[in-house]
Amino acid sequence: MANREASDWFECVPNFSEGRRPWVWERIGRAAEAQGATLLGAEGDPDHHRAVVTVAGGAAVIYEAALAMARVAVEAIDLRQHRGTHPRIGAVDVVPVVPLGATPMAAAVALAERIGRRLAEDLDLPVYLYGEAARTPKHRLLAELRRGGFEGLAAQLAEDPPDFGPARPHPTAGAVAVGARRLLIAFNVYLDTQDLAVARNLARRLRESSGGLPGVQALAMDTRQRGHVQVSMNLVNYPTTPLPVVLETLRAEATRLGVGVAGSELVGLMPFEALLDTARHYLALPDLRADQILEWRLARRPWETGDGAPAPGAAPPT
Amino acid sequence: MANREASDWFECVPNFSEGRRPWVWERIGRAAEAQGATLLGAEGDPDHHRAVVTVAGGAAVIYEAALAMARVAVEAIDLRQHRGTHPRIGAVDVVPVVPLGATPMAAAVALAERIGRRLAEDLDLPVYLYGEAARTPKHRLLAELRRGGFEGLAAQLAEDPPDFGPARPHPTAGAVAVGARRLLIAFNVYLDTQDLAVARNLARRLRESSGGLPGVQALAMDTRQRGHVQVSMNLVNYPTTPLPVVLETLRAEATRLGVGVAGSELVGLMPFEALLDTARHYLALPDLRADQILEWRLARRPWETGDGAPAPGAAPPT
Repeated sequence: MANREASDWFECVPNFSEGRRPWVWERIGRAAEAQGATLLGAEGDPDHHRAVVTVAGGAAVIYEAALAMARVAVEAIDLRQHRGTHPRIGAVDVVPVVPLGATPMAAAVALAERIGRRLAEDLDLPVYLYGEAARTPKHRLLAELRRGGFEGLAAQLAEDPPDFGPARPHPTAGAVAVGARRLLIAFNVYLDTQDLAVARNLARRLRESSGGLPGVQALAMDTRQRGHVQVSMNLVNYPTTPLPVVLETLRAEATRLGVGVAGSELVGLMPFEALLDTARHYLALPDLRADQILEWRLARRPWETGDGAPAPGAAPPT
Repeated sequence: MANREASDWFECVPNFSEGRRPWVWERIGRAAEAQGATLLGAEGDPDHHRAVVTVAGGAAVIYEAALAMARVAVEAIDLRQHRGTHPRIGAVDVVPVVPLGATPMAAAVALAERIGRRLAEDLDLPVYLYGEAARTPKHRLLAELRRGGFEGLAAQLAEDPPDFGPARPHPTAGAVAVGARRLLIAFNVYLDTQDLAVARNLARRLRESSGGLPGVQALAMDTRQRGHVQVSMNLVNYPTTPLPVVLETLRAEATRLGVGVAGSELVGLMPFEALLDTARHYLALPDLRADQILEWRLARRPWETGDGAPAPGAAPPT
């Protein structure tokens, strides 16, 4: 849609360990906007006790916005008081940088490195580089970096020093993982049961690291106060393992355990392509293209096709 | 997406009785572009022996484009030679005008009337006004107007005079229905059978006019040369009866008859809202909003929200 050819264009989706005081993530969002970033979303989850803020902009803007957001979070959040179902190591738990449009992954890696160095220098935070920005294979997966949580952080930092900053936790804000990755879909499924063991079983069957589906990270979450336990997932390779495949695999495995799906939840944003994949799968329209969606066609810009009007039967603009 | 506040903005989706010579609908599309219309699509179906061309623009542009397209079609198509599975009364069979953005239906009705009068005057075609532009209740439904086909047209025009033009068929181009309507979805489903009676049975169960689903028009189509018969549908009220409801109802009824769904087909374009409805239904995300789709958010224009950046938790832009 907008700026598909832009080559200095990033999404940044920091996660903060605060899901119960809306003013905190609202203030974080405003701090990013004050630096010129486009605020795409800000939402908190009281049970995960965690908020996700989504901003977009060029490298210079995101560099300043990331620091401004982290500064608010470090001031407002004290991890020593923090209890929640989601694993975390920091007040600013993770800062993922995602290349948009034609922006290369290498540019996102470079931006993540600059942000990481800055957070260490300005806020005295230990910083691990993860994902595509990881400097060692064992730092690629966030789950590995977060394994010991805030409580195990002192031991972890002593044994495995951070890429930037001190080798000891910030007293109230812990540490931060800064990295680069592709777009992902954060998708949670509620089960028709209060039995957390069922959610753990299903998460294990689904996640790639225990032999499940490629590009699926899955955790069981104790959301029993909502009447249902949850399988919380990141789909980090939705072109290979699309949303419908994940949901239908989960549904089939749950059925084998005698459990139904109660509902789903999207955290943050999902890409248009995943919406198309959903329609392709469920509507039996395997060849559905973006340019068969009216608004997509109407929003096309002249520079996207060269002449502003696609030829009949022209290739889709994706 | 683009121009959601525009109040002089129309889609025009004429259907032509030619589905076997691609140069005809390509030339029709170029004729519309030459008048300044945005060509959104042009596709033909050899079995229906029918093409759909989709253009968009303001009233002045669509007024000229409709005449230009009809002129090409009347020159190129001879209905005396035409055989196809789709009911039709004209070379330019139907010219629907659809209001887009904030354009009122009354403006589409007025434009359809002007186009109808012009086609009668310039091309000597009998013109019925249908849909929202119909001047009598019996002309509202296209199926009624087309009941006798080209072959029964002389008798029909004598008995039920057209709104504009002569009360006899154009010798090679028949008549034309010009009207105004809301956006619709043209959706065909192929069945795992060669038995046309099954398709007829299912079409009857689904269509509103025989007690089926609100806003569903359905016909059985003999597409046996593709290995499957077809139920061809227009969903004229997809907010009330969304695509997933139509497909799953059809699937359930087909299963009762021991027949499966072999695949589907979208003719022309579908609105973004229908894509969201599909994800809401199948992904168990009943509250999914347009502004949870990344590209939709990135494409927002400042005039759409007043300030270019939505507040956290702001209402969706639909």
